[in-house]
Amino acid sequence: MMQIPSIPPVADAALAARLDAAIDNKTKPRGSLGRLESLAKQIGLVQQSVRPQLREPSILVFAGDHGVTEEKISPFPQSVTWQMVENFLAGGAAINVFAAQNGCALHVVDAGVNHDFGPRERLLDRKQGYGTRNFLHEPAMSVEACARAMEAGADLAASMPGNLIGFGEMGIGNTTSAAALMHRLTGLPLEDCVGAGAGMPPEGIAHKQRVIAQALRRHADADTPLQILAAFGGYEIAMMAGAMLGAAARRKLILVDGFIVTAALLAAARMAPALTDYCVFSHCSNERGHALMLSHLGASPLLQLGLRLGEGSGCALALPLVQAAAGFLCGMATFDSAGVSDQER
Amino acid sequence: MMQIPSIPPVADAALAARLDAAIDNKTKPRGSLGRLESLAKQIGLVQQSVRPQLREPSILVFAGDHGVTEEKISPFPQSVTWQMVENFLAGGAAINVFAAQNGCALHVVDAGVNHDFGPRERLLDRKQGYGTRNFLHEPAMSVEACARAMEAGADLAASMPGNLIGFGEMGIGNTTSAAALMHRLTGLPLEDCVGAGAGMPPEGIAHKQRVIAQALRRHADADTPLQILAAFGGYEIAMMAGAMLGAAARRKLILVDGFIVTAALLAAARMAPALTDYCVFSHCSNERGHALMLSHLGASPLLQLGLRLGEGSGCALALPLVQAAAGFLCGMATFDSAGVSDQER
Repeated sequence: MMQIPSIPPVADAALAARLDAAIDNKTKPRGSLGRLESLAKQIGLVQQSVRPQLREPSILVFAGDHGVTEEKISPFPQSVTWQMVENFLAGGAAINVFAAQNGCALHVVDAGVNHDFGPRERLLDRKQGYGTRNFLHEPAMSVEACARAMEAGADLAASMPGNLIGFGEMGIGNTTSAAALMHRLTGLPLEDCVGAGAGMPPEGIAHKQRVIAQALRRHADADTPLQILAAFGGYEIAMMAGAMLGAAARRKLILVDGFIVTAALLAAARMAPALTDYCVFSHCSNERGHALMLSHLGASPLLQLGLRLGEGSGCALALPLVQAAAGFLCGMATFDSAGVSDQER
Repeated sequence: MMQIPSIPPVADAALAARLDAAIDNKTKPRGSLGRLESLAKQIGLVQQSVRPQLREPSILVFAGDHGVTEEKISPFPQSVTWQMVENFLAGGAAINVFAAQNGCALHVVDAGVNHDFGPRERLLDRKQGYGTRNFLHEPAMSVEACARAMEAGADLAASMPGNLIGFGEMGIGNTTSAAALMHRLTGLPLEDCVGAGAGMPPEGIAHKQRVIAQALRRHADADTPLQILAAFGGYEIAMMAGAMLGAAARRKLILVDGFIVTAALLAAARMAPALTDYCVFSHCSNERGHALMLSHLGASPLLQLGLRLGEGSGCALALPLVQAAAGFLCGMATFDSAGVSDQER
């Protein structure tokens, strides 16, 4: 069974005071960089430095298939998962464009796609199975398989060279999985957790909600975060949960994408509550439930662009803001060094 | 007197339909890139292309001083304007960090700073005067001087090499000027237009509002946009208004920063209403009045980060999103080209 790594909170009063002073001494009115100032402070606390640097940021896109697609809970067929993985490998997806533009390495992880890709450059083969089982009838994974997926994720995150990992995913059906996880992990009303996903019409959403409600009754005994993740999750979701824990254990910054990635975090943060100290929330998506999920976590997302794509696209788009936060703290002059008169106090 | 260039609306039903089709054929659920999709369409309409490209983006930071600083409406002394210009030239300000990080050229324009810089690399000398007059007692500029400043701005924008210009400013006292402009140009209640600027405490804001109210009575006869801009504006604000008109006349995209830049736009858009078709609103700032100004213009800002710095910092931070919008339209595969199954319709 996976050993949950010990994740210490980042709080450090002395360092926090030094970071506040460093931020306030920069040549700008105090507080005038708004959200970037609190972000700079967070990055400093994670990196334990008043001069934090982002090194070799990368985005990992975890792909997996979901047995529950048998219940017609998505407007796209399951085969789109592997087809989109091929699209990632060929460089034609949104995440390819955004990651390349913002200087971010991109890796695609086969966590459990129902397809044989064979050995492929740029594809990390961590396949845990050919898709999960249909959780309407049985747990998506066994608890053991879920723990193995988490462990594989933790190992992968630990092996990444840089100090920032953006999390993205691809998996037809995975908003259904994430909605079930959200409801069971937060206790929020199911109807607030279920949305249109890749584009279900209203009657489709109602059907999706009925499928989830039935599955929740079937797995009423799933109680621990690991049992819940095994019952309703996906290989890509379990692997992300483990990878987040592995990243934080190495004090890497975690960039969180949308609804599904945040669902993985909900599970992982139940296993190690300080995990959220290491998380930067890239955006609030248009998927119903995401805004509530974020407020449940006390998160302040950087972007609100009505995205609902997944793939880590929000991470790639928000990365320049994270770099700007670290950048102003390291790169700006102080009032003294620049010979600028400070505010009359 | 400045000739207001003719600015045609960008609307083009045939091109709009081609852009919609191009956006919908990309390998993503329809609409899933949210605000970036409408932005991509706007850029396409401005550039009259289904494959828009951003070439050589630059940010112009217009600096000017304000006679109304005599009334103690800012917590910083007037000398901070030239000191910050020196900081821009030395590379130590936030805008230097953000522009460099996002691959954006940065130019500082002396529109009317109360200081002699001498010939300096990286400083564009377009000085219209050593600061404006105190508009509590007399118009900030003569109508002729205001028109000359606008014309110099239009010429500068037309001479820029790229097809995107971000607008930024520096000028101690210029939120006072912008608040007066906002009130007179929109008719919104003065108390909704006046904010903390670089950091006035509440009693300072009340004083600032009284100064503006008195000045509004003094210049009650300022009626046309040019007269209003002359009475309450600044050299940097007038020059920005002209530069926006000059940029749109060349079908360049205009990236709008915060409260002061948007005030310049309010004036310019009264002279040529289609100007806003060419504008991308980079962010909604924390300065009181900016959100209202934006909704008056029907604008959807890209970022909401609680910034209140100016300098074009919001433009530099939003530029990657503008590039992402153009980028996905040019760089992503289509369902056909990638062999991905489209949604079942």
